[in-house]
Amino acid sequence: MSQRAAHTAVPEHCASELLQRVGVAETDMMGVVHHGSYIAYFERGRLEYMRRRALPYKALVERGFHLPVVELNVRYKKPACFDDLLCVETRVAALTRVTVRFDYRVRRPRTEPGAEPAQDLLLEAHVVLACIDARGKPRPLPADAVRALLSPEGPPEAHS
Amino acid sequence: MSQRAAHTAVPEHCASELLQRVGVAETDMMGVVHHGSYIAYFERGRLEYMRRRALPYKALVERGFHLPVVELNVRYKKPACFDDLLCVETRVAALTRVTVRFDYRVRRPRTEPGAEPAQDLLLEAHVVLACIDARGKPRPLPADAVRALLSPEGPPEAHS
Amino acid sequence: MSQRAAHTAVPEHCASELLQRVGVAETDMMGVVHHGSYIAYFERGRLEYMRRRALPYKALVERGFHLPVVELNVRYKKPACFDDLLCVETRVAALTRVTVRFDYRVRRPRTEPGAEPAQDLLLEAHVVLACIDARGKPRPLPADAVRALLSPEGPPEAHS
Amino acid sequence: MSQRAAHTAVPEHCASELLQRVGVAETDMMGVVHHGSYIAYFERGRLEYMRRRALPYKALVERGFHLPVVELNVRYKKPACFDDLLCVETRVAALTRVTVRFDYRVRRPRTEPGAEPAQDLLLEAHVVLACIDARGKPRPLPADAVRALLSPEGPPEAHS
Repeated sequence: MSQRAAHTAVPEHCASELLQRVGVAETDMMGVVHHGSYIAYFERGRLEYMRRRALPYKALVERGFHLPVVELNVRYKKPACFDDLLCVETRVAALTRVTVRFDYRVRRPRTEPGAEPAQDLLLEAHVVLACIDARGKPRPLPADAVRALLSPEGPPEAHS
Repeated sequence: MSQRAAHTAVPEHCASELLQRVGVAETDMMGVVHHGSYIAYFERGRLEYMRRRALPYKALVERGFHLPVVELNVRYKKPACFDDLLCVETRVAALTRVTVRFDYRVRRPRTEPGAEPAQDLLLEAHVVLACIDARGKPRPLPADAVRALLSPEGPPEAHS
Repeated sequence: MSQRAAHTAVPEHCASELLQRVGVAETDMMGVVHHGSYIAYFERGRLEYMRRRALPYKALVERGFHLPVVELNVRYKKPACFDDLLCVETRVAALTRVTVRFDYRVRRPRTEPGAEPAQDLLLEAHVVLACIDARGKPRPLPADAVRALLSPEGPPEAHS
Repeated sequence: MSQRAAHTAVPEHCASELLQRVGVAETDMMGVVHHGSYIAYFERGRLEYMRRRALPYKALVERGFHLPVVELNVRYKKPACFDDLLCVETRVAALTRVTVRFDYRVRRPRTEPGAEPAQDLLLEAHVVLACIDARGKPRPLPADAVRALLSPEGPPEAHS
């Protein structure tokens, strides 16, 4: 049986977008966003992904399920600057019994007067999370969490 | 003439509120928000304060006005936790020809069923910014920036 | 009895210096160290202060004593740049039964050929820590910790 | 001609080790080092790698060569905790005309009384840097930089 077969099929609707305004603290002396600053954007992206599916990560933690990052991969294509309004797309790309893979694309809308709307793709990334218990042992994701991760998003909160 | 007299009177409407959801990266091993994580919240608070008054900081920078922090003061009262939705109140407290003082209060709404809405005051802070030119020399704030800083806020953007 | 009387007298030898090289991540688009980056330098300064007096903070935590920051005050004077080698001076300035105040001075050695050695004072700061138990209640500092905090430093570790 | 052939052969001595003490700010509510905190360790590792070969990154920047990160890959194996003294091994793994790949291993010495010294491997990572000019265009690494990157390390500075 193939590795692929162990994965749950992931529907196209398993994506959420978070807008993220770049502050000064995230930039570096090159005048662009420091490559390490995106890690926090990715984290916010997946926390929001879960919240919009009525699966706040905090509730999982309180039930004894923890989701540390075990793999991180980023391909940087174009730099972002202070005050840019970035669109962080978070997508569930793969699910196994004890892991979730999120794929990211960070884009910046381009707005030239009189032109068609377009977007610069700034980076692509993915992270793999492992589900563990409070002592660090692998623990299968609960069925309701799998259902929530595979569902379409509900309405965003007024403020998140 | 007193020091106080050099200050511009600041109206009560010189305040804006930003909601800020606490992520994992901002917490520390005590299980609460690390004291250093609030610095970024303060920065976002004043960037948003300026944006809501049609004075985006980026535009000031492009005109050769920079506003580095020259003083920072925080009194921490209660800890915040992961997933808390914090209200960051940013207020212009004093203006001189070459400085702006912002006062902050960070609060957490309390929502006990059946009780009146209430808020925990988590901290109070202020920062003083100095207006300088690109070479680091003091430069008086331009008149339109003073007007914007002293005006009431316009509508928040859909996403910021 | 005066407030001052409640303080333990602090000897002049209650100071330690930590050298800190500035990386890229700590800078911002102004080309200088972001004001928030110093918070981590202060923390390292006092952790090293304690370690050099055989009072590693970790051992205190394991005994149920926690020292969160309850007050932070920084006056920034001159900017630091990427690759600067900064000297972070950490000094115990005041001790009460349940608080410790650390004073900081961050300096940058100046080395002009043929000139006397000199230092730029980049900032002055202080933090106040409160001693609490695991549930957040004030807890007097243990006598051995007070002794260690008031002692001269031992030799620095080979690597810290 | 294969992709591999475009790479310069990298000698075994192209490695440096940096010891890094874990502070509180780098931890999160799980009680371990947040996965994003390692990004700064990697950066310090390669800055130190270059400094020990008389090729400080700052000097390259002043000559108009910039080395932004274009790829980042981390496989996390075991968590690190507050106060751990980590060994960050930085190795040049591949060089092309316009890129450098650094490989990382982060280890924690284990010291059980009476046992042989051993180390836990906490993570493996690599980053790819691209050499560009001040306008962001690819620019071949200068010959002296290539020589330095491929040389054995000189003595560490007293403080870095």
